[in-house]
Amino acid sequence: MNNFIFTIPTTAYFGKGQINILGNTIKSHGGSKVLLAYGGGSIKANGIYDATVSQLNGAGISFVELNGIQPNPRIESVEEGIRIYRDNNCDFILGVGGGSTLDACKAIAAGVKYDGPVTDLFVDESGISSRITAVAPLATILTMAGTGSELDMGGVITVGEDHKKKVVLHPLLNPKFSILDPEYTYTVPEHHSMAGVADILCHLMEQYFTPDVAATVQDRMNEGVMKAVLEEAPKILADPQDYDARANIMWASSMALAGFQFVLGKPGFPFPLHGMGHELSSMYDMTHGVTLALLTPSWMRHTISTAPQQLPIFAQFARNVMGVSEKDDTIAAEAGIEALEAFYAAIKMPANLREAGVKEEDLEVMAEKAVENGNLGILTSIGKDEALQIMRMAF
Amino acid sequence: MNNFIFTIPTTAYFGKGQINILGNTIKSHGGSKVLLAYGGGSIKANGIYDATVSQLNGAGISFVELNGIQPNPRIESVEEGIRIYRDNNCDFILGVGGGSTLDACKAIAAGVKYDGPVTDLFVDESGISSRITAVAPLATILTMAGTGSELDMGGVITVGEDHKKKVVLHPLLNPKFSILDPEYTYTVPEHHSMAGVADILCHLMEQYFTPDVAATVQDRMNEGVMKAVLEEAPKILADPQDYDARANIMWASSMALAGFQFVLGKPGFPFPLHGMGHELSSMYDMTHGVTLALLTPSWMRHTISTAPQQLPIFAQFARNVMGVSEKDDTIAAEAGIEALEAFYAAIKMPANLREAGVKEEDLEVMAEKAVENGNLGILTSIGKDEALQIMRMAF
Repeated sequence: MNNFIFTIPTTAYFGKGQINILGNTIKSHGGSKVLLAYGGGSIKANGIYDATVSQLNGAGISFVELNGIQPNPRIESVEEGIRIYRDNNCDFILGVGGGSTLDACKAIAAGVKYDGPVTDLFVDESGISSRITAVAPLATILTMAGTGSELDMGGVITVGEDHKKKVVLHPLLNPKFSILDPEYTYTVPEHHSMAGVADILCHLMEQYFTPDVAATVQDRMNEGVMKAVLEEAPKILADPQDYDARANIMWASSMALAGFQFVLGKPGFPFPLHGMGHELSSMYDMTHGVTLALLTPSWMRHTISTAPQQLPIFAQFARNVMGVSEKDDTIAAEAGIEALEAFYAAIKMPANLREAGVKEEDLEVMAEKAVENGNLGILTSIGKDEALQIMRMAF
Repeated sequence: MNNFIFTIPTTAYFGKGQINILGNTIKSHGGSKVLLAYGGGSIKANGIYDATVSQLNGAGISFVELNGIQPNPRIESVEEGIRIYRDNNCDFILGVGGGSTLDACKAIAAGVKYDGPVTDLFVDESGISSRITAVAPLATILTMAGTGSELDMGGVITVGEDHKKKVVLHPLLNPKFSILDPEYTYTVPEHHSMAGVADILCHLMEQYFTPDVAATVQDRMNEGVMKAVLEEAPKILADPQDYDARANIMWASSMALAGFQFVLGKPGFPFPLHGMGHELSSMYDMTHGVTLALLTPSWMRHTISTAPQQLPIFAQFARNVMGVSEKDDTIAAEAGIEALEAFYAAIKMPANLREAGVKEEDLEVMAEKAVENGNLGILTSIGKDEALQIMRMAF
């Protein structure tokens, strides 16, 4: 096991009605003038906006708004948020939404304390956003489970006309606190709920499929969360208002990335599937989680065939997570991948890139750009050719 | 799933050589005059004391010492620590040792900020130590894996001539940071290393065996840590300097109680095995972890026989943790208990209370006192009669 630092500087208030702690808890963190950031109008339709405003008013906290943050949030929203925060002398940021809103808020929180363009604050050679030295205090109210942004230190921002995905990453970016009320996800449409499930599962797999360094505790905990996701997600399909299923998926989302606990002590910080998936999102504005479900089985098969020494970890995944009992590693690993494909089908992910509307002639440019995102190969080397091969296999 | 608050306000620096961050990190938390607390002379024999002092000196931090903290730490050590801290105008506490030293340091940290007897600060009707409102900053250097005190908010202190176990419990008691170097546990004798393993496993089981509220994520993560413990502990027996095995057991110790994450969202805070085990420790000065290994199988059998509706959770434990494949719940549960007994035997725990030196005529008074500790029944009601029955079964 490698050395590591474990820290989760966010308090999570989990469960029904936790919105009731909002006003006083913001005040206890020194907030008196809040930048309230959110996406579209859904929080107005489902009552979350009203409950939030009522809490702020009740605590005598004034606020200004940044709304219209898009999925795959853009740098322009971040810059607008920074401007509004500064113009109104805010002292606290409250993000209400899913991962996109929360990610934008993290970049805003860092940007308002930085004397220069916020684009300076993306991850640099150091592996984190080393130019971040101070951030505005941030709290979040989660309305969609998936990205884990509510309990982690990162965010993904889209930049430029070519929709480049850039990452802000720093321990200071952990929210001060997050409110996780599973009932707030009741109205998330099925497709987005299940894309969130695929995203959670991918976060867990990206931390699981790394070279073996005997990090047994991390891997067994990770397997546990994966199993819980496989067990609980179909219950949401059956009943979108199944409280316990929504609660488990929400908590799985948070646990998957909290402190990056499942990759601590392991080598690298690879996320090759996210690297490739982001290009699908960029070119087709495809829901993030869907891109991951589309690519994962092909990435697994590609890795096994090009780096057969990694076979045991895929066989272990098959046995410990997917319930495969086959003794032969090669057969077990393939059975595990097939079981994963069956799960994706059960949660109604598209079967392949073609079915998802991808054009074959775009694969090459996406493969090229994916590699520019860097660090795609941790179990096996992935350059443009390999990325293209994986995408073709997934087509 | 019930509502909960998740918070782990301790940063863990994990791995070889992490002692090197000690001096600067204490300074970053405002420490300039440290109360350095430890137990016996072992840290002087194995070099940890020298490394610690060298770090303090190198950072220009002065210190005074409290030494001689005993296993099952006594209130008198806590009171002495409070006096030394105050007399020397300390501003930081550094505990170097196992759970006993760390627990004593937590009570000292709370006591120095409280204007009254430290005995006021034990857990009250509220379920935590509600009189604690401020604590001195605390850091720990762990030298023995087991209690989880390095990453949790509690401590157990022994009080009075009858060795009563009292608990301090408050989120403020989480250390600011803990240094976890697996190499520091190389010299822990086999018996204490394995007692620590039994303690870790019991912490996990006490959080696992609660009424089912569909906290699937917590339970599957818990099962993962239990499996890792079963897998890694025997490697320490084979080679006490197996770094990865020591690392996994150390991290399992921390994960088991960090933020009480595996019981969050579940009903009650029972710890019936700790309640009974503490009486064995009190009367026979028996190593804490050993008492738990001695009582657990009998408690499991007693619970199944008196509360058969709880059978499924024991069958699930057998299948998901102990690798039992039997389909019938009753047979599976018993097979799981037998597999657990085999594990305890493999890590050289005594087979029964008699073998551990307990006298049969003491059982009744221990059962009586155990019930005074309160809250022994969560899956099934446990009064004095039931506690006695469990102890007789374990005899």
